[in-house]
Amino acid sequence: MSKIFKGTKPSRRSFLRGALAGGGALAGGAAWADADPAIVEKQPWNQYLGDGVDARPYGVPSKFEEHVRRQDVPWLTADPISSVNFTPLHELDGIITPNGLCFERHHAGIAEVDPAQHRLMINGLVDRPLVFTMQDLMRFPRENHVYFLECAANSGMEWAGAQLNGCQFTHGMIHNVMYTGVPLRLLLAEAGVKTEGKWIMVEGADASGMNRSIPMEKALDDCMIAFKMNGEALRPEQGYPVRLVVPGWEGNMWVKWIRRIEVGDKPWHAREETSKYTDLLPDGQARRFTWEMDAKSVITNPSPQAPITHGPGHTVLTGVAWSGRGTIPRVDVTLDGGINWQPARMSGPSFDKSMHRFYFDFDWDGKPLLLQSRAHDSTGYVQPTKDQLRAIRGENSIYHNNGIQTWAVNEQGVAENVEIS
Amino acid sequence: MSKIFKGTKPSRRSFLRGALAGGGALAGGAAWADADPAIVEKQPWNQYLGDGVDARPYGVPSKFEEHVRRQDVPWLTADPISSVNFTPLHELDGIITPNGLCFERHHAGIAEVDPAQHRLMINGLVDRPLVFTMQDLMRFPRENHVYFLECAANSGMEWAGAQLNGCQFTHGMIHNVMYTGVPLRLLLAEAGVKTEGKWIMVEGADASGMNRSIPMEKALDDCMIAFKMNGEALRPEQGYPVRLVVPGWEGNMWVKWIRRIEVGDKPWHAREETSKYTDLLPDGQARRFTWEMDAKSVITNPSPQAPITHGPGHTVLTGVAWSGRGTIPRVDVTLDGGINWQPARMSGPSFDKSMHRFYFDFDWDGKPLLLQSRAHDSTGYVQPTKDQLRAIRGENSIYHNNGIQTWAVNEQGVAENVEIS
Repeated sequence: MSKIFKGTKPSRRSFLRGALAGGGALAGGAAWADADPAIVEKQPWNQYLGDGVDARPYGVPSKFEEHVRRQDVPWLTADPISSVNFTPLHELDGIITPNGLCFERHHAGIAEVDPAQHRLMINGLVDRPLVFTMQDLMRFPRENHVYFLECAANSGMEWAGAQLNGCQFTHGMIHNVMYTGVPLRLLLAEAGVKTEGKWIMVEGADASGMNRSIPMEKALDDCMIAFKMNGEALRPEQGYPVRLVVPGWEGNMWVKWIRRIEVGDKPWHAREETSKYTDLLPDGQARRFTWEMDAKSVITNPSPQAPITHGPGHTVLTGVAWSGRGTIPRVDVTLDGGINWQPARMSGPSFDKSMHRFYFDFDWDGKPLLLQSRAHDSTGYVQPTKDQLRAIRGENSIYHNNGIQTWAVNEQGVAENVEIS
Repeated sequence: MSKIFKGTKPSRRSFLRGALAGGGALAGGAAWADADPAIVEKQPWNQYLGDGVDARPYGVPSKFEEHVRRQDVPWLTADPISSVNFTPLHELDGIITPNGLCFERHHAGIAEVDPAQHRLMINGLVDRPLVFTMQDLMRFPRENHVYFLECAANSGMEWAGAQLNGCQFTHGMIHNVMYTGVPLRLLLAEAGVKTEGKWIMVEGADASGMNRSIPMEKALDDCMIAFKMNGEALRPEQGYPVRLVVPGWEGNMWVKWIRRIEVGDKPWHAREETSKYTDLLPDGQARRFTWEMDAKSVITNPSPQAPITHGPGHTVLTGVAWSGRGTIPRVDVTLDGGINWQPARMSGPSFDKSMHRFYFDFDWDGKPLLLQSRAHDSTGYVQPTKDQLRAIRGENSIYHNNGIQTWAVNEQGVAENVEIS
């Protein structure tokens, strides 16, 4: 390990200098010791004036970042209107997913809702059924929280072994956003939940009328009716103008374009909690109501879409970890397929039920690597291997695969999705 | 104050119900007690299928949010390539500024830098002058931090009295972003700062060659060489592919498109720290090196661009506060121009040198209001009035106006920028 991790004084520089000299050479001519001012002075972008402050009222990424995009996989589903695309985790850093890159999952395409016409109804076992306009919702006290949203089917293809070559596709049905909204308990209090009201049914305003059952205890705990993400209005594909936030629970329950909350005395057993979003066990029985997302992690760099592009020497490994049950105080990393584990360095905010960022800074010797990460959450739960999961759950499952992911890196720095036993 | 702020049980609902009934009526027919399912079932967006997951690889806001935009003020400057636009603070919530809405300030327009060709040089009083490619920088250990960036000229027009009618224009030269980057001290350590190296000069790669002097103590403390903002690559207008982050200090020092760091034994006295970004006092002397941004706050809603649009009753007031010297543990709010002050409710993460979000939930009686907010930072400093500032600094200043802002709200809910003595 480089001294530079611990030392901040100018004198402690010898190690990294050696390691990075190789990188300079590989980068094609950028010489570390040859600091000729002409290198930085003669560039096309300082020879002309650029666009002014009136050019883009709403900004967009650089043209050099066009490869950073959500990607769908056409063969996965029959039609893109009931399908998914994936967050490019290997292109991101920190813990915030920018709104333009949050993965999408729709069941009838993106509803384009006019906020002036949208209504949210609360009915069923309440003292007083209510209908709220968006303006009405803005008069309730608001809160701000960062939460991950993960589709229960994230990594679902991997039950059958290493399938997809890239963390965008194996783990990209997740995003992590700061929400602003009204605690759901305040709206339920306004309607007055009757004593026998033990469940709610939440329903979307899109053409699929997506609906799910949620126990009252969760509804009154930390659920939110959110109208902002990362500071601005929700994006259309994330439920504009208002969505449900169900912290730590599977994404399908976070109903978008939410139009109705019905209070009842039992679950509805809607399509998406019976024929879908249940896990078929080896004995033919299905697990019921598997709402919470267990602790999980993935190394985002290096990974199949993000190879090591320099020679031996100093290398930054990074990834993300999360748990539906709390925070992630620790992530372990192995370079040799699980023989030796070392703690990663966590960096950035640690919030309950939020994505966490980890780094492992090491000196690559240029030999093949078998990379894995293993998350520990604040309840003491440790992320299992895929084989440990299969031993209990079999291989019929689609959902809730939180097994440890392996990337094999070869001498050229190229990474591949593999399974090891 | 409504009981709903403290009570989460369904029975504590009587107050808000009464207050909100007025809002429902004002909204034009949304009846609180008339929860007919037809209200939510018959909407155009559930009658057809929407766009699929292949429609927008990089997402954009709803068409109903087109009014949410950065705005420039053409008469402020001679040309938009050396000018500023403003963050629409009144349309945002939480503490994160989305990348597309971060205000811009350029001196020669937006440099469109090719990251493969960009270089960062460190030279001057160092043991070993170095030139880094972007790939080289990615091999140093990274950190993640949320910081505000405020232009020293933010609120500058207001030295002469209430000028601009909207917090976007009075306070919108600020944004708050999660940065990923390399601590500057690691790069300086790699080059080896000589004993006599007490200052650095940082220089941008755009056509203006923007440069500023920074004392070595700050450079080695918390400055970062950042390449990501809110998870993704920096936007071109924010310095893509790499910018300097100088936490808590005036935005002009956060050099964008940074291409060179020279180590020296004294400040450079560049244009932007002599003829500009100094504060002219009443006696004709100028304040030198006024780097830190003092504690400041503003109410974003209601405000001139965001009137109250409902009748008397429950109202959410919100705003933001920040300090270049630490956190904001407390913000006070007054509804009567400073006769009575009450503590606001803080909500969301509190980070060092970051924007903080505050709320004040109150029952509006429909009478005129004189709204002010007053930030307290973690050093004990309290935001001053504009008159207190003028008593010391006179009225020649452009920069560093952190005085308390007043909005006058009339019976119709319309807000106006005013000054009171």
